[in-house]
Amino acid sequence: MQKPSIPQGTRDFGPAQVARRQHIFNVIRRTFEQFGYAPLETPTLENLSVLTGKYGDEGDQLLFKVLNSGNFLQNERRGVITPNVTAEDLDAGPKVVLPKIAEKGLRYDLTVPFARYVAMNRGTLTFPFRRYQMQPVWRADRPQRGRYREFYQCDADVVGTDSLLCEAEIVLMMAQVLNGLGLHDFTIKINHRGVLRNIFQALGGAGNENDLFVAIDKLDKIGREGVSKELLEKGFAASVIDTLFELLGVEGDYAEKLQRLLAGFATAGVESDHDRGYRGLAELADVHDLLVASGFRQFERLEFDPALARGLSYYTGCIFEVKINNVAMGSVSGGGRYDNLTGAFGLPGVSGVGFSFGVDRLYDCLESLDLFTETAETPTRCLLTHFDKESGLAALPLLAQLRAANIPSELYPDASKLQKQFKYADAKGIPLVLILGPEELAAGVVKIKILKTGEEKVLPIGEVVSALTV
Amino acid sequence: MQKPSIPQGTRDFGPAQVARRQHIFNVIRRTFEQFGYAPLETPTLENLSVLTGKYGDEGDQLLFKVLNSGNFLQNERRGVITPNVTAEDLDAGPKVVLPKIAEKGLRYDLTVPFARYVAMNRGTLTFPFRRYQMQPVWRADRPQRGRYREFYQCDADVVGTDSLLCEAEIVLMMAQVLNGLGLHDFTIKINHRGVLRNIFQALGGAGNENDLFVAIDKLDKIGREGVSKELLEKGFAASVIDTLFELLGVEGDYAEKLQRLLAGFATAGVESDHDRGYRGLAELADVHDLLVASGFRQFERLEFDPALARGLSYYTGCIFEVKINNVAMGSVSGGGRYDNLTGAFGLPGVSGVGFSFGVDRLYDCLESLDLFTETAETPTRCLLTHFDKESGLAALPLLAQLRAANIPSELYPDASKLQKQFKYADAKGIPLVLILGPEELAAGVVKIKILKTGEEKVLPIGEVVSALTV
Repeated sequence: MQKPSIPQGTRDFGPAQVARRQHIFNVIRRTFEQFGYAPLETPTLENLSVLTGKYGDEGDQLLFKVLNSGNFLQNERRGVITPNVTAEDLDAGPKVVLPKIAEKGLRYDLTVPFARYVAMNRGTLTFPFRRYQMQPVWRADRPQRGRYREFYQCDADVVGTDSLLCEAEIVLMMAQVLNGLGLHDFTIKINHRGVLRNIFQALGGAGNENDLFVAIDKLDKIGREGVSKELLEKGFAASVIDTLFELLGVEGDYAEKLQRLLAGFATAGVESDHDRGYRGLAELADVHDLLVASGFRQFERLEFDPALARGLSYYTGCIFEVKINNVAMGSVSGGGRYDNLTGAFGLPGVSGVGFSFGVDRLYDCLESLDLFTETAETPTRCLLTHFDKESGLAALPLLAQLRAANIPSELYPDASKLQKQFKYADAKGIPLVLILGPEELAAGVVKIKILKTGEEKVLPIGEVVSALTV
Repeated sequence: MQKPSIPQGTRDFGPAQVARRQHIFNVIRRTFEQFGYAPLETPTLENLSVLTGKYGDEGDQLLFKVLNSGNFLQNERRGVITPNVTAEDLDAGPKVVLPKIAEKGLRYDLTVPFARYVAMNRGTLTFPFRRYQMQPVWRADRPQRGRYREFYQCDADVVGTDSLLCEAEIVLMMAQVLNGLGLHDFTIKINHRGVLRNIFQALGGAGNENDLFVAIDKLDKIGREGVSKELLEKGFAASVIDTLFELLGVEGDYAEKLQRLLAGFATAGVESDHDRGYRGLAELADVHDLLVASGFRQFERLEFDPALARGLSYYTGCIFEVKINNVAMGSVSGGGRYDNLTGAFGLPGVSGVGFSFGVDRLYDCLESLDLFTETAETPTRCLLTHFDKESGLAALPLLAQLRAANIPSELYPDASKLQKQFKYADAKGIPLVLILGPEELAAGVVKIKILKTGEEKVLPIGEVVSALTV
């Protein structure tokens, strides 16, 4: 006999948790579909040839690899068996052994499988192709609070168009989902990789562009001092770093920041790269105009932050990140435009833009803000009591009617003590108990008890369903 | 550059397929919830200690095992590194190497994780516990038509009661789901392990009980002759085999078969094992009575089949299996009662009953019977055309109104040729194209084209949403 357990970093979701998670998925799905995004599902297992090298060295380490089935230590060809893994392979280490014993891995994100899907189906897809995908991903990360080894991502991407309408719609969808979940106090940060490039140019081409972006990305965590220190070590001059923080720290509203950066770039002699001056600033202005035209009303929640960098990812245009204010939690959503997502799979030059919600983080935010209303451990609305065999049988037609009226209902399966049946309803959070004892049956009535209030009413059997569906 | 592919036996589901699959899931979920079953989700990764030995030797072979993360060839303890896998281990084979390099596996079915969950949470669950679970499972089976390495199961089980009401409700749920999917021509086969035991006893205790059940289980595939041959080889006498086929072949409706088997068992001198004679027959009679009382009206679709065996599984009471008639496809649903599901996890004596739908088989049945109505590659109902920047901006308020009215809509993202925009709507299956050109804008109207019929009508902009929501 063993004491059962589940792997570190994984979770069971009981009925109340599934119902709450389902609520989050429904709000996201409804929003994605209202905006014309169509569902896609890709396999849990992907070939390691598809996954490896797409997430950096650290990502390759964190991929869950699946052992080849059958005898993974042997090769068989035309009945001749030879060793697959040798003692020399063991000495050479996991880099040599791994490709011999594992050719599949678990989905690590939804972006690479999407790119793989688009490349594989290029001939039959109609572009622009808008897809959403809500599936779990797996990472062999060290588990800690808010970080799991199996967790859901909800992505929406559109590929095959460079229209900035798509960027504006990402802001609209982010706001609609958060408002729909009751998370009204949020900040959507927006920036543009072009702005970051222009800032780099304004520094006079000092140091390395990637070093700069990596350092800026840490501003939230290590502050201005930490970033300065890192940049000095990387060979940036102190005066250049001052210019950097002047540009990153421009104040004002969305439009004012655009104006001030424009002036800053011009002063620093940055050459324009767009028919309207600087591409990043011009596109951010367009996104703003499109939001105004779309009737977006929460501009106080949209912040142009020139210091938003989104790491060393494949983004090339607008980038986004969302935080819930007054909750100690990382970003709950993020995304951006990329120019070459499918290039690694032989389909270059497909521009697209997408973003992702982290369901587990949204769940934790909703819980810490006490915004979940659903607590029942069952969908059941009515529990019919069971006195004895005869009254049990007599309850079955009413049970069938309730279910036919889409009112989830149960007859307590055994003729246990009434107290036990009430305790069951209470523990499960079933709101109504319908009492059909011999007396009620003789009188052709049902006694309905509302558990929360203790209120009771007696109704003729034939009126119960209509009373409950009103 | 690599040519991307997906692993054998796995599938991508594009938008139309996801929508169709979602339809099946919704019908099943609604039914489960109407009957008071609550959702549960368990992790994809389970410890191999939980999975191994639960599915027989073949099952252990078919489990997908996940390689331990980090350097799986080494052990590290207090900074001292020792080899984890040695050359001697390689010689000893995969049975020795496997436990050293893999401690997790992929979910193989939903029953074992459910039993593990119940045993782990015995202290906090309220019994009877009704749960449903709709999640994918993985098996390293040889892929072939209708058999995949990743596929969904939809299970509903109730544990902690031996009430036969649960068995009757399984028949009701099976019928409701199939009717709900439009699969009206089905057969629900029911039998009872007690009936099979009584049949074995009626043969005078000849041979081995398991041999008998295994042989009967193949009746569908190898016929009476094949089964006879197998039983003769296993040492059953020819006269005994004749008695067997007499009992398995009883004719008549549900009640008549019960009567005839009762007489047959009595003639053969089988001792009764129940206060009403034979437990299997008595319980099958009770299930029938409960169905009558519940208003079940499809008794012509319910067949008592004494030859139904359901393999060598853990079932101890009623067993079920469902086929769609006139479709070349195995069973789409099956289940039964078990007395000791959680025993392996240290919680003995929990009786329960459950059943499962195979979504992939239901999908294939619906497809081969041409019962899917949904074919669109997008949820979008309205495509708004895009002539130029100005008319694009002018379309945005209408777009926002349509979405707010829960009518999934898109503005074509670029000001492409109108023909291209119509082609896009056509390819995606978008039913309505809303034309907002400079002329329409000047007149304050929208031209609506119904793609299927070619019909056109012109409406004032302010009336579009209400016209489409009626």
